[in-house]
Amino acid sequence: LTLSERAFLGRLRRALPTPSKISGLILGPGDDAALWRPRAGCEAALSCDLLAEGVHFSLETTGPWELGARAAAVNLSDLAAMGAQPRLFLVSLALPKRQGLDEAWLGAFHAGLHAWMGAFGAEAAGGDLSGSRHDLFIDITVLGEVEQGKALRRNAARPGDAVFISGPLGGSAAGLALLRRPALGRRIDPGAAVLLKRRHQLPMPRVLAGRWLLQEKAAHACIDISDGLASEAWHLSRESGVALRLDLDAVPLAPGVEALARALRRDPLDLALNGGEDYELLFTVPRSKAGLVASKMDHYAGCAPAQIGWVEAGRGVQARRNGRWGRLADGGYEHFKD
Amino acid sequence: LTLSERAFLGRLRRALPTPSKISGLILGPGDDAALWRPRAGCEAALSCDLLAEGVHFSLETTGPWELGARAAAVNLSDLAAMGAQPRLFLVSLALPKRQGLDEAWLGAFHAGLHAWMGAFGAEAAGGDLSGSRHDLFIDITVLGEVEQGKALRRNAARPGDAVFISGPLGGSAAGLALLRRPALGRRIDPGAAVLLKRRHQLPMPRVLAGRWLLQEKAAHACIDISDGLASEAWHLSRESGVALRLDLDAVPLAPGVEALARALRRDPLDLALNGGEDYELLFTVPRSKAGLVASKMDHYAGCAPAQIGWVEAGRGVQARRNGRWGRLADGGYEHFKD
Repeated sequence: LTLSERAFLGRLRRALPTPSKISGLILGPGDDAALWRPRAGCEAALSCDLLAEGVHFSLETTGPWELGARAAAVNLSDLAAMGAQPRLFLVSLALPKRQGLDEAWLGAFHAGLHAWMGAFGAEAAGGDLSGSRHDLFIDITVLGEVEQGKALRRNAARPGDAVFISGPLGGSAAGLALLRRPALGRRIDPGAAVLLKRRHQLPMPRVLAGRWLLQEKAAHACIDISDGLASEAWHLSRESGVALRLDLDAVPLAPGVEALARALRRDPLDLALNGGEDYELLFTVPRSKAGLVASKMDHYAGCAPAQIGWVEAGRGVQARRNGRWGRLADGGYEHFKD
Repeated sequence: LTLSERAFLGRLRRALPTPSKISGLILGPGDDAALWRPRAGCEAALSCDLLAEGVHFSLETTGPWELGARAAAVNLSDLAAMGAQPRLFLVSLALPKRQGLDEAWLGAFHAGLHAWMGAFGAEAAGGDLSGSRHDLFIDITVLGEVEQGKALRRNAARPGDAVFISGPLGGSAAGLALLRRPALGRRIDPGAAVLLKRRHQLPMPRVLAGRWLLQEKAAHACIDISDGLASEAWHLSRESGVALRLDLDAVPLAPGVEALARALRRDPLDLALNGGEDYELLFTVPRSKAGLVASKMDHYAGCAPAQIGWVEAGRGVQARRNGRWGRLADGGYEHFKD
């Protein structure tokens, strides 16, 4: 730590909210390590996600506040998929010497990060700040609490379950296309264009949805859609040792995705299946709870779930479109990049 | 995650030891998040450290196994300074496309990382693997267990305490100089040169020392020497609200540091005070325990502690050299770089 780094961190710490102790944080940033304990009857859920400049984001299309918030959202989504309540985060930043990447930029980044983390109940436990020769790197570890033995796993789907998605897909991929080629925006509704871009830059982690599903025992298995529905459906199928049957005509698309797909001369469903980064939850629901999810989840978890298929004994992912069945390609992000 | 990343991670996971459950890990890598609970009566200690290529290491002077082990050591040292028992880690890697940075490289990196983590009781709970446009980045979060309310803090030094260091200093800075200018090696003992280089590439985290100090209630305050003795002494003084008096003639130097300093035409003590990265522990000992530390710690914690001063009421850090007192400059790493 250089003297100027220390001074900066001191100013930053004073500007940010002080630890609330609601999170169970016993000792926050500033010592060699932070101290924390999950409350009685709970386990810690832990995950980390790295964002690399030029790979996961561009500073030309993303401002510091949005980048901080998005980094928070991407990480919180992993906790959401376990049904965990976010509590803490640690953030490591490698910052190149470059015009514009100054203390004001860092302050805005941290403001977005803390705002989005704080909105879902997580506070800072620590971090590291380093130089970088070329690119900006952000790595975040999040910790949450989950009731002992109750976490929503990927391996618990059972034949007879209904397959649900927590909200519409394709919006993030469409928003990214709009950010890269702003001229496309003239060919769709201006309001929809704004929402699509925001959906890419600031995905909504489905923390409430995960918590509600856990508390209502309404989900057997759950995973978040980071690489696209196709890829995550295959994950669920493999990990649970079951077959998934998906009705692609029932997959909800975010508003504006169809219009943008037309402008791109692409299949809108391809954006939903392989676009990725929508950060909705894909989960399987025991038959006795399907009615509850369909009728109450929007009200209690602030999302719009849709049934898109069901689970059968067997293996693999079959999908129906326009009445015809076929094997769904395990494409994921890689497919979309081609 | 691309298909090839997934295949690689699958191969890696099969090659590494399976979770032992000794760590308290309930669910290891592979789901959206890992699950873990500290045992009854313990809190979690959490810390993260980022290593950036060209800033913290060079691939020209450090092989993959050594880099993995060093990344582990740097992170474990933070837990050691709290007196915590390491349990888990999460590792994020951003890997550029470059000749030599292939699956074999990654395998060797993880072998070193897991070997060093495993030697101190920590196992993998998760991670992330990403591309990078230019440089390699490693960010690790470690979690340990520490008995509730017993962690060794920076703010607990009291007037009357003895100030100890867990082992000799200056070795890491001397080793780095040797790695950068191999010709210097001809001017010191060959055996010492090997040990100095190893001390830079593979510092020994003082986990046993931290655990022993905590269990014997032998330390009031503790901090690890990542930025150099001068900088960390000022930290302890500030955080504890006390004055430190250091006897610089009593500061132990690693074997070969004096000879190398002569070759560099530098003051050997400068390497110890401002060189950094020695990862020894600086701790204060209540008077009643100073004899125990001096006589037993080498036997139980495998290190060679030395008393280098004492704590008084007041502020700041005063140092004595050749019988003369002066204020110790709060230089740290920044100073050394000039």
